[in-house]
Amino acid sequence: MGEEISNKQVVLSNYVKTSLKESDMSLRTSKIQLKIPSGCDGTVLVKNLYLSIDPFILALMKNQELELPSFTLDSPIYGFGVSKVLDSSHPNFKTGELVWGFTGWEEYSLIKDPDQLFKVQDKDLPLSYYIGILGMPGMTAYVGFFKYCSPKKGETVYVSAASGAVGQLVGQFAKIAGCYVVGSAGSKEKWGFALMKVDLLKNKFGFDEAFNYKEEQDYNAALKRYFPDGIDIYFDNVGGKMLEAVLNNMRLNGRVALCGMISQYNSLEQPEGIHNLINALVKRVRMEGFFTSDHYHLYPKFLEMVVPLIKEEKITYVEDIAEGIESAPGALFGLYSGRNVGKLLVVVARE
Amino acid sequence: MGEEISNKQVVLSNYVKTSLKESDMSLRTSKIQLKIPSGCDGTVLVKNLYLSIDPFILALMKNQELELPSFTLDSPIYGFGVSKVLDSSHPNFKTGELVWGFTGWEEYSLIKDPDQLFKVQDKDLPLSYYIGILGMPGMTAYVGFFKYCSPKKGETVYVSAASGAVGQLVGQFAKIAGCYVVGSAGSKEKWGFALMKVDLLKNKFGFDEAFNYKEEQDYNAALKRYFPDGIDIYFDNVGGKMLEAVLNNMRLNGRVALCGMISQYNSLEQPEGIHNLINALVKRVRMEGFFTSDHYHLYPKFLEMVVPLIKEEKITYVEDIAEGIESAPGALFGLYSGRNVGKLLVVVARE
Repeated sequence: MGEEISNKQVVLSNYVKTSLKESDMSLRTSKIQLKIPSGCDGTVLVKNLYLSIDPFILALMKNQELELPSFTLDSPIYGFGVSKVLDSSHPNFKTGELVWGFTGWEEYSLIKDPDQLFKVQDKDLPLSYYIGILGMPGMTAYVGFFKYCSPKKGETVYVSAASGAVGQLVGQFAKIAGCYVVGSAGSKEKWGFALMKVDLLKNKFGFDEAFNYKEEQDYNAALKRYFPDGIDIYFDNVGGKMLEAVLNNMRLNGRVALCGMISQYNSLEQPEGIHNLINALVKRVRMEGFFTSDHYHLYPKFLEMVVPLIKEEKITYVEDIAEGIESAPGALFGLYSGRNVGKLLVVVARE
Repeated sequence: MGEEISNKQVVLSNYVKTSLKESDMSLRTSKIQLKIPSGCDGTVLVKNLYLSIDPFILALMKNQELELPSFTLDSPIYGFGVSKVLDSSHPNFKTGELVWGFTGWEEYSLIKDPDQLFKVQDKDLPLSYYIGILGMPGMTAYVGFFKYCSPKKGETVYVSAASGAVGQLVGQFAKIAGCYVVGSAGSKEKWGFALMKVDLLKNKFGFDEAFNYKEEQDYNAALKRYFPDGIDIYFDNVGGKMLEAVLNNMRLNGRVALCGMISQYNSLEQPEGIHNLINALVKRVRMEGFFTSDHYHLYPKFLEMVVPLIKEEKITYVEDIAEGIESAPGALFGLYSGRNVGKLLVVVARE
């Protein structure tokens, strides 16, 4: 028998009706043996190092129909993480290996379907990158921009939630593709991050222009200011009124990648209506939703492109790191308030 | 000098604010010489035979920004027509030839840019077909369905405004492509056409199922009834609440061709909002607007496909014909009320 030790967990206390509250989650300490129990063939036992705070988490807390199973009450929340294998009864995984993929919001997890785990390929890069630029958010930016936006040199690109996990990369990919790119970010001024975020977009990620959407009374006017000749590509992370304003400003044959609608996930009784879809018709705009999970066969190709870019410092990645599993509920709450600056994640343990 | 004769015209009396009234147009009789005046090189003088009543007409009456120039007050409305060349100062056109393309709502027109005219290719088929199945509406159905909807055998297809100029063909193309196809049509019961239209869809055009949307309290429920496993392809001619209901019922990787939004063109102060675009994201739906005018290079290929289908009676086309140019204002008004059964057109003269 392995050593039995305590295992701090973040569990779902109740399903979320409309707006997330930190009290919808609670901390609990259970016990776990650091050895796979008998009868659990094909599983791996991992120590979780980094947990990813992603927008889709709220949907699973609302018990909404997604392809992923919703969270179970009083069980740990799950999401992407980087973990170290402590014990394995699966032929493909060995003790000591580093992996990323779905794991629990807890210190140690017994993973029953390790086939969905990826092995960490390149240990020269920060491990946390595997839930960021080298993980799902990186793939999202890559697939969403290169496949769904079909960029051409000289085109104009707008990215919302541009300082987030995905947006910061889309902006940098757009520059690499030879596009003009404008990003927006924002937060309630009481958090004091808005200026920092807008500044990051231009000075760290190389966006041509950036603005704080919270300071704009009229999104339509803001977009006309930055795109006097219109927008070819919109990488939509927010949905709602911003999408509506963008449709007014799209150019002929424009493309909109529907990646996320974070403005619509929390707090709203009914999502905002888009009243001007006629623009998509008149301007022959292609709007397309996508899920990164359909495209993991492109992951090796993605790594081939992005790893050298990181190592040559042609691309950069900003993380917003919360310390300790206890900080996960607050971090998730902050995500929907736009409090994060860069990719939001929680460090559970550094090794 | 040619003979000077009277020329009945339908002119725009005032721009339309919200809802079209027949009194927004007026009839006028002017004079015209049946010979091209000197100094008008490169023009053709035509006798108009058939005029097409198309949904885009209202936009030009509203002075909206489209690629086509809006109508001029007190000048004839223009649109698609089939015409006979009476005189030509353009090297490509000869007296007696039959053409289709933009012409005026009048008995005779002097066409200043005949380069946009197409010659009637096959005189064995009804001439009026060149503003219907063999003209813009036919090309719209062809391009919209085969290019934008990417149909695969066995997929499920929904067509709104299915008994109209475009919808009736989309349904028949879908059957040829091996799809299951459901159409909706409708009109206010006082017109008495609803039953006829729904009946036509199944018994004349071969739709698998059809319904009168005016009889449905809940579009969502209606669509679930006809598509228990969801919709792969939606050919959208109407927009608005029907589009919203369809998005709830789309299948994974579905496609929506945004062809028209006739429910939104007339009467509404503000277009209806679409509140559930999140479905396009979660279901990876591609929504794409298109204009037939971008695709006329495919016209010969289209004729190659459709002419044999017509001649072999594998495809059929229903027209709703109004007699005399005086009937054009009433016919246009009827289009937005859903009063027409089939492709709406006006006969000005039969030869």
